[in-house]
Amino acid sequence: MREVAILGIGQTPVGEHWDKSIKEIAGEAVFAALTDAGRESVDGLFIGNMLSGQLNRQENLGAMLADWAGLWGVEAVKVEAACGSGGAAIRQAVLAVASGVMECAIAVGVEKMTDTVGPATTGGLASAADADYEAAQGVSFVALNALIMRRYLHEYGWHKDHFAPFAINAHANALHNPNARLHERVSEAQYHRARTVADPINLLDASPIGDGAAALVLVPSDSLRANGRPIVRIAASASATDTLAVHDRRDPLWLVAAEQSARKAYAQAGVSPRDIQIFELHDAFSIMAALSLEACGFAERGQGPRLALEGAITPAGRVPIATRGGLKARGHPVGATGVYQLVELTQQLRGEAGKTQVAGATLGMAQNIGGSGATIVTHILRAA
Amino acid sequence: MREVAILGIGQTPVGEHWDKSIKEIAGEAVFAALTDAGRESVDGLFIGNMLSGQLNRQENLGAMLADWAGLWGVEAVKVEAACGSGGAAIRQAVLAVASGVMECAIAVGVEKMTDTVGPATTGGLASAADADYEAAQGVSFVALNALIMRRYLHEYGWHKDHFAPFAINAHANALHNPNARLHERVSEAQYHRARTVADPINLLDASPIGDGAAALVLVPSDSLRANGRPIVRIAASASATDTLAVHDRRDPLWLVAAEQSARKAYAQAGVSPRDIQIFELHDAFSIMAALSLEACGFAERGQGPRLALEGAITPAGRVPIATRGGLKARGHPVGATGVYQLVELTQQLRGEAGKTQVAGATLGMAQNIGGSGATIVTHILRAA
Repeated sequence: MREVAILGIGQTPVGEHWDKSIKEIAGEAVFAALTDAGRESVDGLFIGNMLSGQLNRQENLGAMLADWAGLWGVEAVKVEAACGSGGAAIRQAVLAVASGVMECAIAVGVEKMTDTVGPATTGGLASAADADYEAAQGVSFVALNALIMRRYLHEYGWHKDHFAPFAINAHANALHNPNARLHERVSEAQYHRARTVADPINLLDASPIGDGAAALVLVPSDSLRANGRPIVRIAASASATDTLAVHDRRDPLWLVAAEQSARKAYAQAGVSPRDIQIFELHDAFSIMAALSLEACGFAERGQGPRLALEGAITPAGRVPIATRGGLKARGHPVGATGVYQLVELTQQLRGEAGKTQVAGATLGMAQNIGGSGATIVTHILRAA
Repeated sequence: MREVAILGIGQTPVGEHWDKSIKEIAGEAVFAALTDAGRESVDGLFIGNMLSGQLNRQENLGAMLADWAGLWGVEAVKVEAACGSGGAAIRQAVLAVASGVMECAIAVGVEKMTDTVGPATTGGLASAADADYEAAQGVSFVALNALIMRRYLHEYGWHKDHFAPFAINAHANALHNPNARLHERVSEAQYHRARTVADPINLLDASPIGDGAAALVLVPSDSLRANGRPIVRIAASASATDTLAVHDRRDPLWLVAAEQSARKAYAQAGVSPRDIQIFELHDAFSIMAALSLEACGFAERGQGPRLALEGAITPAGRVPIATRGGLKARGHPVGATGVYQLVELTQQLRGEAGKTQVAGATLGMAQNIGGSGATIVTHILRAA
């Protein structure tokens, strides 16, 4: 297995692109990534997407995008792992290049969630949970996370307001990301007053859906020549799963698969959580941010909110998260999110993150979650 | 890259399993394959499926099945390429083992198409075509194939009745496959009288949908010890794409991606079409069987039906196809079909195909198609 590097990145703004179909949105990210990479062709295309069948009545996305993007004839396939689809597609693309099967692969995450032809988006998102034992009971995805958060508050004695810094940090960072969905500063008072979505989750705990696509061009590291820009290498790629239904878990407050996939990733990269300078985590809800920080070894059990309250999660802190806005404020076009995370981490490691640049960052981690912790994909990037 | 072998196979009957959910159907195939392989665990799970989101309101199939099948915590992901999803999932699993990332992977194809909660299955299947330029015009999947067949009859001067042998052969073979959907012998007269579905396609040209799952356990060849049973090796795995919309093709009667992926596969295995002793092709419609035979080098352009009329496609012929019933009579649970093909080819190469055994077969090919020729995955198996 050879080492893989990120040669090019591309993304569209996350928003309501009512004037664009899913193929147009995905195509924009592909063209941007190919331009950034200085390439016109690839050997393969891996598309992370969750809802194209349900919301856009379009499957066979691999052939669709190879065709639309002018990558005529290349091997192409869609990879699905609910909201972890983007990370899962990257992992397959990394594998294809690392194994020598391809010299150049592109991983694209795309989701078109507004102005759709299918049923309500909330119904589609519920298909990330267990259809037989969760969704069939009428539990929406936000409701599942609300149950987890309620239990967390009870178990560890936090007050709901202690979660405010997650939203404040994400929104502050998104102000400087032109591709972010939300550009509004948020205060503690606003968080306190925010309307409840599913008690105790309020509007500022929950990430907004959106339309968007992001893409990465991957090549073997040894094919790269120094060109003045830091080379960003994939130091680790790892995945694990947990039970699909939350109620089947021994401890619903511990993300076993996040811990497992992070451990595998640390071992591959030869690092520990202390070495990670940026952690682009899956803050679909602020409770998920807290649980991820704990499962990946950045905080003690039940102490995720403390990191946030101490300011450690800001770009100047010890464990910067959501540095370009995170799911919370950059937005969460579900199947695309995992690719946005790596695109943003690449910006950071190249030193191209502008006002939210983490000074001197050379090692960063991204973690993408499908379902309420059911599928987890973790990547570690290293710049040199 | 190391060579990969098929250690175990499993399948459910194709039928209307109203009493079983998608996870139960998939689980049965997994358990059967693990039992056949003599294994209790795997390192990873690759699920080929097209319609679980639309028809079963269940995504995140990787985590779902790892959980349900007791393969707790393993890496798991769904791979989608319309009706080519099964072949595409196998290809990712092969890659994972060949590259050394996994020592044992399982590829599972599953589809649950009857007694579903979503919209009509025909609507779901149309999402394999181009949503913007084909499905939006009201063209169903069978209608697209009917347009292709109508053109073929016009261009090459065949009469519709010349396609009868495809159905006759498939149905005759399925009689001896207990897992086949249809167990009815078909005659030329019945084919001639069969009701039209979309002119010129009649009921005996079209494969039936169904519920079903099939699975393969994959390991490195060098991990296997002789145990009296032939070892079935993956001699080639290759994929290619074509335009999604049929009207965008220079020649709608030539499956460019089938030709491309077959050529890559021949080169990998170091063989030519003359060496292939069995060809499990994607006979979703009889016109597709003819086009596949031509694109893969078994018949001249426009001469696919001649092979069938000459009896070359029967188990005793020169190019046996649909030896266990094919899509036409074993049935076409779309995302599972590509895995059924390799399970059946393994039965043949092991000499376990009973009354439709192709005598002395040691080299076989399977080709799985997603959309009307848009995504093609080809595998060649060799027994030794």
